[in-house]
Amino acid sequence: MARVAGVSRATVSYVLNNTSAVRISEPTRRRVHEAAKELGYVPHAAARSLRAGHSRMVLMPTPDVQVGPLYSRFFNELQWALSRLDYTVVQYGGVGLQSDEAVRAWAELRPVAVLVPGSGLGTQGVAVLKRSGARAVVTLGPERVEGAHALLMDHHGVGRSAGRHLLERGRRRIGVVVPDDPGLGIFSRPRLEGVRQALEGTDASVTELPLAHDEESAARLAARWRSLALDAVFAYNDEYAMLLMRALQDEGIGIPDETAVVGADDLMLGRLLRPRLSTVHIELPSARELAELVDRAVREPAAPPEAREVLGATVVHRESS
Amino acid sequence: MARVAGVSRATVSYVLNNTSAVRISEPTRRRVHEAAKELGYVPHAAARSLRAGHSRMVLMPTPDVQVGPLYSRFFNELQWALSRLDYTVVQYGGVGLQSDEAVRAWAELRPVAVLVPGSGLGTQGVAVLKRSGARAVVTLGPERVEGAHALLMDHHGVGRSAGRHLLERGRRRIGVVVPDDPGLGIFSRPRLEGVRQALEGTDASVTELPLAHDEESAARLAARWRSLALDAVFAYNDEYAMLLMRALQDEGIGIPDETAVVGADDLMLGRLLRPRLSTVHIELPSARELAELVDRAVREPAAPPEAREVLGATVVHRESS
Repeated sequence: MARVAGVSRATVSYVLNNTSAVRISEPTRRRVHEAAKELGYVPHAAARSLRAGHSRMVLMPTPDVQVGPLYSRFFNELQWALSRLDYTVVQYGGVGLQSDEAVRAWAELRPVAVLVPGSGLGTQGVAVLKRSGARAVVTLGPERVEGAHALLMDHHGVGRSAGRHLLERGRRRIGVVVPDDPGLGIFSRPRLEGVRQALEGTDASVTELPLAHDEESAARLAARWRSLALDAVFAYNDEYAMLLMRALQDEGIGIPDETAVVGADDLMLGRLLRPRLSTVHIELPSARELAELVDRAVREPAAPPEAREVLGATVVHRESS
Repeated sequence: MARVAGVSRATVSYVLNNTSAVRISEPTRRRVHEAAKELGYVPHAAARSLRAGHSRMVLMPTPDVQVGPLYSRFFNELQWALSRLDYTVVQYGGVGLQSDEAVRAWAELRPVAVLVPGSGLGTQGVAVLKRSGARAVVTLGPERVEGAHALLMDHHGVGRSAGRHLLERGRRRIGVVVPDDPGLGIFSRPRLEGVRQALEGTDASVTELPLAHDEESAARLAARWRSLALDAVFAYNDEYAMLLMRALQDEGIGIPDETAVVGADDLMLGRLLRPRLSTVHIELPSARELAELVDRAVREPAAPPEAREVLGATVVHRESS
């Protein structure tokens, strides 16, 4: 490149590294940049971050559960919002890594900020990330972790909304689907607990219904449905609701007359079912707001960690309840 | 760290960088490693890759269309398979970047391999990536790009299978849903073309049906369905099929008697519909096989690029056709 620009190698390095210690004339700078462009030179992010002491990389570990369309859209919007603030968003596949190991792998990439969905990051993990240069650690999950900013996604409210709605509709024996997938426990346990909270002090009861996401399990549950004597079910989310509702209908169980069904997530498929599925609409934080929180945290690493409740839940009443 | 280990700073650096130029005794090495562990030292991936001249990072740009559950699962398995071969898989959110700019952003991260889903990467892009140190560039898409390995995902076969199946079922006036979303064009155009190929030389005809993924569009299409005089429809995929089938049923159109419906992707929801949805089952390449191809390509960067057809398509006949 020095040859193409007609300058010394040192000059090329000074210009491309934007060194201010050495005075270089504007025409020379321009010549070097033109030569770089002509030769298809791409700066080295790693080298630049070593020089700068930090990168513009925001690391988002991929959640270890299969995320639904709702979360995929949210992550896409967040990536977009962060890239508009000049961050490079990188998703890291933590698949198969245990927590400690995962945190060290994230730290090796020297991100300036880490956004951790789900639970599992401990105080120790936050410390490792900060020591290796992360200026901001933000968790998106059910609880606060010391030293990290927290976007609290409390799923109790989802269950409470569903429970209150079913009570208001006159239901008293309420089943709650709990997916068999242990990875979903951080969502399903608080949703179940939320239904219990809504029913406290009433004569209504809660029955826990473990269910795998396949037709056979749904058919088995439907076959013993009448013996359970339930008049309503909160089916965890719309996909489980579709699965269970189909099995109940195939058993000849009237919906909503015999059993009211409520899902969650407000997916389009719920509107396509007959009867149309009642659901809990979940309000996620705005991607732009979250991106700005990350940016603020990066620019003021010494500020005390913020915690914010971000999950809204409202029932969309359709025909199934 | 030098203080904790009781050695000089230079010795710490030699040990942690694994320098072979300097002889350091085993006990000293051990002392440094123990001190590093005690202090929670995390190696710097960037610094290491600068020294090594390349990283173990495999970069997978996130596709710029909303991917379905089929592809999400495939990507998860691939990440897992690559991490077992000791690669660090990083997904890069290319959202909002135009192609050239995107390629330069990928190159800045100095990945040892890049797996590019979809189309859009040109010969120029491959060259930029290779010049910045990528030993392997693999595209997963409809066509070959010079200089890159190619996993050819030809969607013509998906359309051909659907077309042949409908012909065999005695249908002659076949509609093909083409999603309104321009990002899906790389899948939907070849699927439409594939149906045409299957019908060539027969008396059957193809009608292109643009459709947005919302209820209103589906209802509008269903309202004019009888005037189209179609006896079958290949609905692009299972989700569009669910949307359209519901709208047709709401119009009182008998399925499959009046109109046969075929989806694609073989999602569980198809089995939950009534009538059960016929679909094209799509066989994706095995994640382990693909991971091994990447590994081989990294270890033999001079080997000529391979191209492989990887998309299988077979019809699963259920009740809707």
